[in-house]
Amino acid sequence: MFKGHQSFIFESKPVILASAAAAGPFEGQGPLAKDIDLIHDDIWLGQNSFEKAEKLLLEEAAEKALEKAGINKYDVGMFISGDLMNQIISSSFAARTIGIPYLGIFGACSSSMEGLAIAASYVDGQKVKYVLTGASSHNSTAEKQFRYPNEYGAQKPPTSQWTVTGAGACLLSTHGKGPKITAATIGRIVDMGISDPFNMGAAMAPAAVDTIEAHFRDMGIEPDYYDIIVTGDLGAVGHKIALDKLIESGVRLPEKSFGDCGMMIYGKDQQVFAGGSGCACSAVVVYGHLLNRMRNGEIRKMLAVATGALHSPLSYQQKESIPCIAHAVAIEM
Amino acid sequence: MFKGHQSFIFESKPVILASAAAAGPFEGQGPLAKDIDLIHDDIWLGQNSFEKAEKLLLEEAAEKALEKAGINKYDVGMFISGDLMNQIISSSFAARTIGIPYLGIFGACSSSMEGLAIAASYVDGQKVKYVLTGASSHNSTAEKQFRYPNEYGAQKPPTSQWTVTGAGACLLSTHGKGPKITAATIGRIVDMGISDPFNMGAAMAPAAVDTIEAHFRDMGIEPDYYDIIVTGDLGAVGHKIALDKLIESGVRLPEKSFGDCGMMIYGKDQQVFAGGSGCACSAVVVYGHLLNRMRNGEIRKMLAVATGALHSPLSYQQKESIPCIAHAVAIEM
Repeated sequence: MFKGHQSFIFESKPVILASAAAAGPFEGQGPLAKDIDLIHDDIWLGQNSFEKAEKLLLEEAAEKALEKAGINKYDVGMFISGDLMNQIISSSFAARTIGIPYLGIFGACSSSMEGLAIAASYVDGQKVKYVLTGASSHNSTAEKQFRYPNEYGAQKPPTSQWTVTGAGACLLSTHGKGPKITAATIGRIVDMGISDPFNMGAAMAPAAVDTIEAHFRDMGIEPDYYDIIVTGDLGAVGHKIALDKLIESGVRLPEKSFGDCGMMIYGKDQQVFAGGSGCACSAVVVYGHLLNRMRNGEIRKMLAVATGALHSPLSYQQKESIPCIAHAVAIEM
Repeated sequence: MFKGHQSFIFESKPVILASAAAAGPFEGQGPLAKDIDLIHDDIWLGQNSFEKAEKLLLEEAAEKALEKAGINKYDVGMFISGDLMNQIISSSFAARTIGIPYLGIFGACSSSMEGLAIAASYVDGQKVKYVLTGASSHNSTAEKQFRYPNEYGAQKPPTSQWTVTGAGACLLSTHGKGPKITAATIGRIVDMGISDPFNMGAAMAPAAVDTIEAHFRDMGIEPDYYDIIVTGDLGAVGHKIALDKLIESGVRLPEKSFGDCGMMIYGKDQQVFAGGSGCACSAVVVYGHLLNRMRNGEIRKMLAVATGALHSPLSYQQKESIPCIAHAVAIEM
């Protein structure tokens, strides 16, 4: 059902039957390790390229979600996935392995929620019984493509973020038990003129604010409706900006319930500058950790707002600023 | 409604209120010129980069579709778009200009139909009143990224195809007059081991065949149900392979009604090797030419099967073969 300009309600409340997360060794040392189903102690995952390692993480998360739900992949009508790689090769090559009818998406780090919002639409409309969503990133593939290969040892400023090595997958169904997707708000592009790829949090914060404001305006509810409102990967710099801007524009967001996946995935002792980032950041934290907290009864209502920076290395070289976006999905137990 | 494993029906029949196409000078010399709303005589479109020219083509097609429908962009709830560029910058930067809530997709040259299939799902589910879809490509941006910059003058084999410089846009609505979207079939990845980026038609043909077979199996209809079945950009090489394979597997496809956008967009006097390709190929031919033929009463039922090659320059360098896909959308007048 329409609900304002950017939002809509899923009347049938599609169910997240199961979800899973896979990650690398560094993420396995973080505070959310117990919610990561598969932790690898080798960032190569035994592959001969980082790209193949990233693809494998996504395949593993997808297989694990299917296994947890006890659903055969031949019964799943759709796999929706996105990542940061040029031509989203991690998703498309994983889709080749998985063999499920496939829709590729690109929302950069907002892919986890873009995928859920599209999947929920198909399930809600009774078009498909089961839909699998996925998102992945790998620190070494992302750094090499967007900045410098890690082997160069380039110095980073404190505003920079650490791309998460991992993947998450969610299995949605028309029926069954589990957290339910109740609504979504699709974001607009917000570009405040920031062009520094080492300061994504500040670039993305206004997009998160725009979508959060739209969600409450469209839905006619107050922020205290949710037990937790979590952004994707703003990190410490972007989180502070977003909170200030929300307060400034009169959104009464309870500070204790406003979190950021990029600030949750690594511990204070882990050197990650302003926090985590990458498609896998919100995928691992929301699909892995937070959905588990919902299943355990610790959270009943969550608004997940995944943020994405939609530039490319080429657009950066051509002196363009960074267009950013955020998509919000409401999940209730 | 579910309809077999890969297909579904849109009960409410979302309407294509208007559609538009923009293209470059070479496409303007082709046989479909009269169905291209905006033909430019400068491949740069007055911009200082080919990337900006491609973005402008997409913006123009989108604006023209809105203008034809007489709909204000502020009333459109969603813009869904894809292209071939790394991180689909043409779509995301056009979305920044257009300002409509945005979902980025990546299906390479299958993007035109992936976008329609997602848009129709949202419109059918009464989530959004108006959705705009778009797809674009530019010969000079694609050649530079996937093969060699045109300025190098690299020789091409006869199996290669000519990336279309253009863009198309469609405006879908819950109500109104125009061609209606009745069903869609989502493709699986098919990879026959071809790794030659100069022979996309042969690589993509098996994916087109797989989706066409799935469509008729799922829907329980015969190929003569449609007045025209058109693939995206198989070109002469891929079209022949697809037709042979379909006959081989018993799909009784009337040869005269089986066409390919890549063989329609350029004239016989235009040197394009095996035919046209790129996201704009099916976007310009289907969104532009064929929807006009439907509006004129020349075609009543069409199955548009857009094909995509989902490799990247990096996956090619890493000796991977090309994973291909095709999505089919049924449109009826």
